[in-house]
Amino acid sequence: MKYQAINFKDKLSKFQEHWSPRVIAEMNDYQFKLAKLKGEFVWHDHKDTDETFMVIEGELDILFRDGKVTLNAGEMYVIPKGVEHKPVAEKECKVMLIEPRGVVNTGDADGGKLTAENDVWI
Amino acid sequence: MKYQAINFKDKLSKFQEHWSPRVIAEMNDYQFKLAKLKGEFVWHDHKDTDETFMVIEGELDILFRDGKVTLNAGEMYVIPKGVEHKPVAEKECKVMLIEPRGVVNTGDADGGKLTAENDVWI
Repeated sequence: MKYQAINFKDKLSKFQEHWSPRVIAEMNDYQFKLAKLKGEFVWHDHKDTDETFMVIEGELDILFRDGKVTLNAGEMYVIPKGVEHKPVAEKECKVMLIEPRGVVNTGDADGGKLTAENDVWI
Repeated sequence: MKYQAINFKDKLSKFQEHWSPRVIAEMNDYQFKLAKLKGEFVWHDHKDTDETFMVIEGELDILFRDGKVTLNAGEMYVIPKGVEHKPVAEKECKVMLIEPRGVVNTGDADGGKLTAENDVWI
């Protein structure tokens, strides 16, 4: 089929790893990525770009140095560039990330094992 | 509250007009817009940019000159720049559009009454 819808549930069924975003689409030089999050991520920021979180299933807390935002399914938040944040999901949460191609998930932080391979498509 | 989730249902409750996108967030020079679609739109393209459709509720057909794609809730499609398309929603459909700031909904076509005011926030 030449034109095919990109279905989030279908794409999410193709991987199980946490904190490991998979690219599902590109728009100009931006990418749409799906990720499964569980537990605590590292504090980090992205010096050169804003970053969008959209929750598809579950609940996600995004901590800031002076507050936090809680996102449920059908909610989004745009982290401004340069703002330190730490995603935390008590239970598994499924999210879409939207950001320019090439953004590393742990930003400038030493992410250790949490730093995921970039530009992995499903 | 300093950090507040952007809730799609809440934002969608704030307007009723069809084919009249409302901006709910910005990421760098891109905008996230919500729109309610019903009936047939005009054939048009966007010469300079891709455009993303994501369906939140209902069903949307996007016609191309040589085919079509049908999107339901939890599905998306990226229209490549320069590709003529015509959105059609038999019943009311609620969508998110993602595209650079400044994109006009009817592109280069003579949209008549369908050409919406740009950059209207809710």
